[in-house]
Amino acid sequence: MSNTEDRKLKDTIDGVTRNWGGKFFFEMGTPWKRAVNNWKNKGGVVVHLTAYGENAETSDVLDRIRGSGKDILIMVGSQKVPGEFFSEAVSDFNVAIGNQPHSECASVAVFLDRFFKGEELARSFQGGKVRIVPRSRGKEVAVEKKP
Amino acid sequence: MSNTEDRKLKDTIDGVTRNWGGKFFFEMGTPWKRAVNNWKNKGGVVVHLTAYGENAETSDVLDRIRGSGKDILIMVGSQKVPGEFFSEAVSDFNVAIGNQPHSECASVAVFLDRFFKGEELARSFQGGKVRIVPRSRGKEVAVEKKP
Repeated sequence: MSNTEDRKLKDTIDGVTRNWGGKFFFEMGTPWKRAVNNWKNKGGVVVHLTAYGENAETSDVLDRIRGSGKDILIMVGSQKVPGEFFSEAVSDFNVAIGNQPHSECASVAVFLDRFFKGEELARSFQGGKVRIVPRSRGKEVAVEKKP
Repeated sequence: MSNTEDRKLKDTIDGVTRNWGGKFFFEMGTPWKRAVNNWKNKGGVVVHLTAYGENAETSDVLDRIRGSGKDILIMVGSQKVPGEFFSEAVSDFNVAIGNQPHSECASVAVFLDRFFKGEELARSFQGGKVRIVPRSRGKEVAVEKKP
């Protein structure tokens, strides 16, 4: 989360990761230009999700991103993002999860689901205290054994 | 949006539909039990999206929903939903877009993307004033011709 600090949000993410596992982390307050430049200097590509970009369904943009074989930084803004987000200095790909107005959160979710071809939903995370046992009815939570 | 009224939210949705087209509408203040009963009486099925449900990736739940051939009401709550949501009286299917904590908005988006096999992102909506012309860089908006 660039250009802003929200301690409470970080605490929430950290709490979820403690209980449910995984290596998620939250970084705030880094100006977005610095984050982008650091990423590019490490050899990564930058994907900007925007309703104005190449359509993820009707174009081959996802194949081209996968074809780059590089690690990906996904940028997502809100209704008004700086025009520079669209420039070659910033984004390697401008990708639209449909060219209609939509939720930014939804666009990240659908991008990840398509990029990983759905396998991410079957993944388990290490280091959590609890995990859900899927059920057709009701709730079941199992306590993870200590390794 | 059941059990609550938020006029501003309705105005936002209506404004988006006026500009971008489509037949989206927003209904508020109907108690959820009534909405569910009305839907079931019309022969529809009810899908409750919940992290506790059958995994959309590792189970065949999406095929079973499609196989019903019926219209679908998707229910999505927040962290605490009434236990009744899981009962046969309410939900025909409890579906998890992954059995990890996740955004409700994201779960609706991924469910729809999978249910429609991605075709929804290529759809255009009738009756709007403007539409986006997809581009690899920059923004292009075309004004719709009057029919």
